[in-house]
Amino acid sequence: MLPLTPVLVAVVCILIVWIFKPADRSLRRKKREPGAPPWVDEDLNDSTDLHQGQEDADERPESEEDVEHIPFSHTRYPEKEMAKRSQEFYELLNKRRSVRFISNEQVPMEVINNVIKAAGTAPSGAHTEPWTFVLVKDPDVKHKIREIIEKEEEINYMKRMGHRWVTDLKKLRTNWVKEYLDTAPVLILIFKQVHGFTPSGRKKVHYYNEISVSIACGILLAALQVTQTIVLKELALASFLNLQ
Amino acid sequence: MLPLTPVLVAVVCILIVWIFKPADRSLRRKKREPGAPPWVDEDLNDSTDLHQGQEDADERPESEEDVEHIPFSHTRYPEKEMAKRSQEFYELLNKRRSVRFISNEQVPMEVINNVIKAAGTAPSGAHTEPWTFVLVKDPDVKHKIREIIEKEEEINYMKRMGHRWVTDLKKLRTNWVKEYLDTAPVLILIFKQVHGFTPSGRKKVHYYNEISVSIACGILLAALQVTQTIVLKELALASFLNLQ
Repeated sequence: MLPLTPVLVAVVCILIVWIFKPADRSLRRKKREPGAPPWVDEDLNDSTDLHQGQEDADERPESEEDVEHIPFSHTRYPEKEMAKRSQEFYELLNKRRSVRFISNEQVPMEVINNVIKAAGTAPSGAHTEPWTFVLVKDPDVKHKIREIIEKEEEINYMKRMGHRWVTDLKKLRTNWVKEYLDTAPVLILIFKQVHGFTPSGRKKVHYYNEISVSIACGILLAALQVTQTIVLKELALASFLNLQ
Repeated sequence: MLPLTPVLVAVVCILIVWIFKPADRSLRRKKREPGAPPWVDEDLNDSTDLHQGQEDADERPESEEDVEHIPFSHTRYPEKEMAKRSQEFYELLNKRRSVRFISNEQVPMEVINNVIKAAGTAPSGAHTEPWTFVLVKDPDVKHKIREIIEKEEEINYMKRMGHRWVTDLKKLRTNWVKEYLDTAPVLILIFKQVHGFTPSGRKKVHYYNEISVSIACGILLAALQVTQTIVLKELALASFLNLQ
């Protein structure tokens, strides 16, 4: 098997989307109810792939043990405590900023593992957990990633966003140059898995994969803010989701 | 102006997607570089609307004060403390479960406001903050929402997921009946704004709106878990993103 480099993972994930997309679109159109309200298709309008007929077999959990059932325990706080905790959490998260200059200070791997484990607790469509987190520390790989991202980001600035926006952003000194991708000690790359495989090796569709992965990103951000590991915080998002 | 009921908001939001989508798709195809790697379009493959030419004017921030610049302050914890906090946060979030039977116990509005404010700290494409959170307490409106959702969910089970999956899920007693939408004292409905308006009243595209809103959902979930307000937790997600 090929080595799992971030770039390779990116290409593999995306190619799968690429192959499925056209069939998918036509299917989706075909499936729409004549009388259905307009938001029906929108509900499924992430890049989730849908299949019908025999392939349904591949989309179901293979057996019950695919579906984890863990007893639920819950201690409810007194109202005052709930209010206090919600207030403190808001104030902490409200301190988050999208920084563009990032320290090269090392972060303990234990912290990185914990925040990724926290992100992995996110709910996902049909519990498919359609995410892959890839850590990159190798300077050469980080630089290759930076080159790919800057190339795409330049297209964003030059075409997708429009010239007047570019002019405005110039004053603010944000552009497609992402030096911090070299500076940061670790990159967390987050990929969506548009499908997985059943034990029998057949494709198993991941519903709502983009939404599910983005929710995991939100939890990752919260975990990073809780631990104040600024050095990492914006990378996965600023780079791959192009967030400000 | 019409009253802002959740159902109406849903319809309004979605109609906007609906109107823009076709133009959008063709534009997106047109814009794709001949030599561009296949993931370029995928990066924009949420339901973000893209426009070119004169309309670029509408997509840029109207002026600098549209772009908030707040000085960044940061206290870095010692490594032991970072590790401890990341571990505790993971363990707390790992207790989250997708419950299907929800208490009708009231939750203080202060808590609800704080968790939504926390969600609102999420980063968003070009800082457009393309989310609308709607609280519903009125039993009749909750019930109407339940009817809409159950109708769509039934289609999920009957067509989108396939019969064999349905058979499996029956054992697990999950189905399209969402009684908890009536039971829960409050529903938080989360909508994506596919575009906003400039002060001059022109449309202003919200880039990556679905990804941005989903990230805010992840932070909302984290905030709810921190405050242990189980009664609310799964509603917005289970109902609108169909997560397990």
